[in-house]
Amino acid sequence: MRLSELGEFRLIDAIRARTGTAAGVHRGIGDDAAELELPPGHRLLTSTDLLLEDVHFRLDWTSAFDLGRKAVAVNLSDIAAMGGAPRFLYVGLACSGATEVAQLEAFVDGVLTEAAEHGAVLVGGDTCRSPGPWIISVTIEGTAPAGKAVGRDGARPGDAVLVSGTLGDSALALALWQQGLTPEPWLAERHTRPVPRVALGRGLAEAGLATAMIDLSDGIASDLEHILQASGVGAEIRRAAVPLSPPFRARLERQPELFDLALGGGEDYELLCTVPAARVAEALAVGERCGVPLSAVGAITPAGTGLQLRDDAGTVRPLRVRGYDHFCR
Amino acid sequence: MRLSELGEFRLIDAIRARTGTAAGVHRGIGDDAAELELPPGHRLLTSTDLLLEDVHFRLDWTSAFDLGRKAVAVNLSDIAAMGGAPRFLYVGLACSGATEVAQLEAFVDGVLTEAAEHGAVLVGGDTCRSPGPWIISVTIEGTAPAGKAVGRDGARPGDAVLVSGTLGDSALALALWQQGLTPEPWLAERHTRPVPRVALGRGLAEAGLATAMIDLSDGIASDLEHILQASGVGAEIRRAAVPLSPPFRARLERQPELFDLALGGGEDYELLCTVPAARVAEALAVGERCGVPLSAVGAITPAGTGLQLRDDAGTVRPLRVRGYDHFCR
Repeated sequence: MRLSELGEFRLIDAIRARTGTAAGVHRGIGDDAAELELPPGHRLLTSTDLLLEDVHFRLDWTSAFDLGRKAVAVNLSDIAAMGGAPRFLYVGLACSGATEVAQLEAFVDGVLTEAAEHGAVLVGGDTCRSPGPWIISVTIEGTAPAGKAVGRDGARPGDAVLVSGTLGDSALALALWQQGLTPEPWLAERHTRPVPRVALGRGLAEAGLATAMIDLSDGIASDLEHILQASGVGAEIRRAAVPLSPPFRARLERQPELFDLALGGGEDYELLCTVPAARVAEALAVGERCGVPLSAVGAITPAGTGLQLRDDAGTVRPLRVRGYDHFCR
Repeated sequence: MRLSELGEFRLIDAIRARTGTAAGVHRGIGDDAAELELPPGHRLLTSTDLLLEDVHFRLDWTSAFDLGRKAVAVNLSDIAAMGGAPRFLYVGLACSGATEVAQLEAFVDGVLTEAAEHGAVLVGGDTCRSPGPWIISVTIEGTAPAGKAVGRDGARPGDAVLVSGTLGDSALALALWQQGLTPEPWLAERHTRPVPRVALGRGLAEAGLATAMIDLSDGIASDLEHILQASGVGAEIRRAAVPLSPPFRARLERQPELFDLALGGGEDYELLCTVPAARVAEALAVGERCGVPLSAVGAITPAGTGLQLRDDAGTVRPLRVRGYDHFCR
């Protein structure tokens, strides 16, 4: 059956029937606005993303289920980067009336699966007709105890720079697809099924370990630069310390230029945080408890020193920002 | 200058420079998520909308400034319909790199003007490249004292049905444009510059007058039906009581079929609420205080009676739902 046969209101009813109740939800889908309650002493954290077919995703490279998961995961990743707990989710979807209802159901499955995995509940959204491509808007509301959320502006000279997981896998998978090749399943999943580091971000924030934090969506060079600018500091990254996965390393040996993907490839959705040097061991222990290894990749340097990369021979050179700008290509 | 010359980050910086601080905002634009505080004893109300060029608006029928205002106004209208106070606004915008920066500035002007007029502050959003048409997502967070927000499920038999302002003006303006005609300025503004009834909704809710409330985005026939279904009741509307503007009445005399636009035309963004019969006078007084007249147009009837229209001769017939379904046209 196609969406034009089902209709907008039956689609909303079908989604609504699949969402349960949750703590703090007084009204969910089906009113003019959701009505929610925050835990006492907590602040609200909100982030919104817009995702467009053929700009952010291609339905021939991802299943509708994975698309639903990833649309939510990248949004949850912003709450993780603040050290918050995700709570209330909103999804807007525009697609054509010719869309198969089964494909929409798979998308909604993905949305609900990802949300449930991280403690969030779908409480609202919007649906409308698109002349063609899918358009997705996702908004997440999370909470953090007052004074515990971590911004980008608290990094201080001497702090260690830590990143979670491994970098560049997602960009490598994408590069292989773009060349008409098929990445191995593990690498492909790093692109199609990123895991937001929610428990890790929360653990680091609630223990007061992170002085600044950001999620790596555009690549470490670009995202760390946001912290440097907001905090008014510089940083030095050690090339040999950048964490790489075995599949990434295997290809890197044959193609050394792939290292750029680890620095500026984007879509890692790992966390980067700064931690006082004396507390690095504590932070690494939080990573171990969460099952997500943290690697110390460098240090924060004084204002005016910029972002530098130290290579294996000890040579230091400026690390050029190579992040993705949507309007300049 | 075109957007591709300015770039995404300079665009965000320019918008950020124009947003001030506000009560409850710990972090606004420029971090992974906004960090906000609700007034004690208040609940969070959230609504999100997706607006697409050529589906929801045409840039040849509206200025970018009016588009920015309206995108925010229709979203604020959802908070008005809950009886809440709008507080924190998020706007996502996708457009092509060829877009003139001056047009974007006018759009942002409109967004900020409308938000400021109703006490909301822009604290986040997203920007990305669109292959062509403009795509806008708007999310508003509001607050209401615990127990004061008004949903769709509280209408009871015997309650009066009240609507604010006049109905059908916006749909009439649109119909004239679609016929290649030019509506008079007052009528055109009812379409391009809808005024969300924020103070009115809040006044009705905080006085505990409204048992159910909704904003008229799809037409009274469709929107009242949502209240009837959520509340498990019916309703009877008196045709002669439907409030019409002088310009609408003037055209209606020549074309009686235009009355359908007042019932099912959509985009009025007036409020419809149900009020216990004994408190109608109090509700009308709230309307007067807010400078937005309320009209009693009918009454809630018992479950199973459906939605009926009583004409001037006293004949009653079912009022067919003619609301807009995005996927069935």
